[in-house]
Amino acid sequence: MPQSRPPVVTLMTDFGTTDHYVGTMKGVICNLVPGAILIDISHEIPGHDISAASFLLQSSYHYFPTRTIHLCVIDPGVGSSRRNIIVSAGHYLFVAPDNGILSGLYDREKEFRVFDITSEHFFLKPVSKTFHGRDIFAPVAAWLARGVAPSKFGREIEDPVRLEIPKVKRSGEREFHGAILHVDRFGNLVSNFPHEDMEKAVLRKKLKFTFQVGTGQISQYRQSYSEGSMDEIFAISGSSGYVEFSKRNGSASETTGASRGDPVRLLFG
Amino acid sequence: MPQSRPPVVTLMTDFGTTDHYVGTMKGVICNLVPGAILIDISHEIPGHDISAASFLLQSSYHYFPTRTIHLCVIDPGVGSSRRNIIVSAGHYLFVAPDNGILSGLYDREKEFRVFDITSEHFFLKPVSKTFHGRDIFAPVAAWLARGVAPSKFGREIEDPVRLEIPKVKRSGEREFHGAILHVDRFGNLVSNFPHEDMEKAVLRKKLKFTFQVGTGQISQYRQSYSEGSMDEIFAISGSSGYVEFSKRNGSASETTGASRGDPVRLLFG
Amino acid sequence: MPQSRPPVVTLMTDFGTTDHYVGTMKGVICNLVPGAILIDISHEIPGHDISAASFLLQSSYHYFPTRTIHLCVIDPGVGSSRRNIIVSAGHYLFVAPDNGILSGLYDREKEFRVFDITSEHFFLKPVSKTFHGRDIFAPVAAWLARGVAPSKFGREIEDPVRLEIPKVKRSGEREFHGAILHVDRFGNLVSNFPHEDMEKAVLRKKLKFTFQVGTGQISQYRQSYSEGSMDEIFAISGSSGYVEFSKRNGSASETTGASRGDPVRLLFG
Repeated sequence: MPQSRPPVVTLMTDFGTTDHYVGTMKGVICNLVPGAILIDISHEIPGHDISAASFLLQSSYHYFPTRTIHLCVIDPGVGSSRRNIIVSAGHYLFVAPDNGILSGLYDREKEFRVFDITSEHFFLKPVSKTFHGRDIFAPVAAWLARGVAPSKFGREIEDPVRLEIPKVKRSGEREFHGAILHVDRFGNLVSNFPHEDMEKAVLRKKLKFTFQVGTGQISQYRQSYSEGSMDEIFAISGSSGYVEFSKRNGSASETTGASRGDPVRLLFG
Repeated sequence: MPQSRPPVVTLMTDFGTTDHYVGTMKGVICNLVPGAILIDISHEIPGHDISAASFLLQSSYHYFPTRTIHLCVIDPGVGSSRRNIIVSAGHYLFVAPDNGILSGLYDREKEFRVFDITSEHFFLKPVSKTFHGRDIFAPVAAWLARGVAPSKFGREIEDPVRLEIPKVKRSGEREFHGAILHVDRFGNLVSNFPHEDMEKAVLRKKLKFTFQVGTGQISQYRQSYSEGSMDEIFAISGSSGYVEFSKRNGSASETTGASRGDPVRLLFG
Repeated sequence: MPQSRPPVVTLMTDFGTTDHYVGTMKGVICNLVPGAILIDISHEIPGHDISAASFLLQSSYHYFPTRTIHLCVIDPGVGSSRRNIIVSAGHYLFVAPDNGILSGLYDREKEFRVFDITSEHFFLKPVSKTFHGRDIFAPVAAWLARGVAPSKFGREIEDPVRLEIPKVKRSGEREFHGAILHVDRFGNLVSNFPHEDMEKAVLRKKLKFTFQVGTGQISQYRQSYSEGSMDEIFAISGSSGYVEFSKRNGSASETTGASRGDPVRLLFG
């Protein structure tokens, strides 16, 4: 059974879907790997937004079959001297420019190995100046899917580019500071407060709390969206492991004016 | 041959494509069903619009191979006590929240069976409060695709939630009332007047007619878009079985100001 | 190996992704060809824009496995007397309305054969007036994928509709005139100047040049986006074989006011 499982390759880019770019990358992959299963994570990453891509990737990659190859092409530095890398971590392989897009992965996985892609005989020739997704990343992902070992593409490196992902910090006896990691399509604000901690404090120990986010003062922890009253912004345990701020049938982001990167202050008592 | 046909799972959500949500659901499915064919119906259903989803589903599901599993996650009540259901109808299986999203299906199929999903051992654990698409619906669809019978997921129920879909009513000797069921991307207005009836009346019996829709007065029944004159709104037999109102190279919805749910009046003579 | 390679069908339409149209076409195909691999090129072609579709197709089709079937449904004349065609060219098959959408292909391939689709027994019945993508194009693509020869669908024709694609013309001793073929999501302006010629002139022979595009005066030829200075519009060798005009971290189209079809003037010296 494991032998006959078709290889899975996911794609995440900021290419959008009005152009042919994503389709062409898939053509390159399925040309080299007949029968590969190609799954889109998102192609609507805001142009060049590496942090947004890092968050989407860390929230999704581990739901795929082991040995899935995750291809991430948000690449403002295409054609420059930035490295291209393969990362092996947690039974998955990742192919991406070395610009910090895998930072969320590095945070989540204790162990990972990084290889600098330099073996040009795997590339599509001639390599264009502007579309390495097609000429470098797609064929490398395809050859990985065919079973070529990551070490065959270049030497192992120890210093991949890593963005600092904001962590929650204690700033007083009953005060913590965090940040908004992501705003989703519904306007839900994903914070960096682990929801397990909040559930312990708020649901079990019944501590009173206030989150300050943008113009919002949030003192309710809800078990489901439908528990929220209309017009109320509430906290809820989100699906990525963090506390989220939401509004029933509305956008918490619009209502509070908060967006990604904004600070979140938590006060107990 | 039937044995070797790979299982097909379709997905319809209001999740959009800027987030990782749809990709993650596909990861869950292909993890459980290697080789499954995953097809998107739409992920741009307007947020929480159950009627729109119901219409898209009833217009598309029967074009798929028998045994296709249709996964529909428009779920404003996620995390509340609303039921989750499997419906078996017309050689297809449907997995959805029990909120009326399958009403178009119930209208179209004379016979169907509904099962309340309660067997939690099929779910992804821990089940989140906010993303049952990933934790409940996707794994249930996957296990169905692997051949588990619907009755294994919970008991059969007789009272699924059913939205009333507006029907055409006679309101005078030569007068009928209907409604707009859907507006598509091109601004075509899909009514609930069955086009077979109109073709008999207008094309065979040559009856004169006027449809009143928004600010539009429509007295032409065209055989194709290109038959329409410029700036004219005309009626045409649409692809979902209903009369549609269209404008050649323009939006009938914008021109008439009509949108989904609006009344349509038909006068003969 | 070639025998076991699953058939690949690509889809390009102007149907958007808010409706069920694309999903339904895929249902029809996978009903007839279990295991077919379905790949989207784009469904966001601006409504009825045949030239835009022609450009996307010519930039992408040759990256797919040989024998891929490319399905192109941008079809403002649906239901009219326009022909539907199958084109066999360069180891690929194309299914489309005969409205010029394949003009880029005809330009690129020296040899091609065109067949007028008239064998209605391959169609889905009843054929609707408004959705030939579902009722004609999808099933024809599926039967081609199953190995039916193009000649079985109708007679060969010699006069397919062909749009004139603008070519670069010399307009003086040191002056050339071209045009913008495409504007992509990032606002990059794709011209019709072959980049190989420009690389010879500018990079090897070090000739000075100015491109005039909209309000832009462009005298820099860059090797990568990141070489460009901020706020500068520069020329670069694009991924489709042409010179493109770009702005680092911005839209060249917005800055210059130029869009598809606009003239480009090139002056040397």
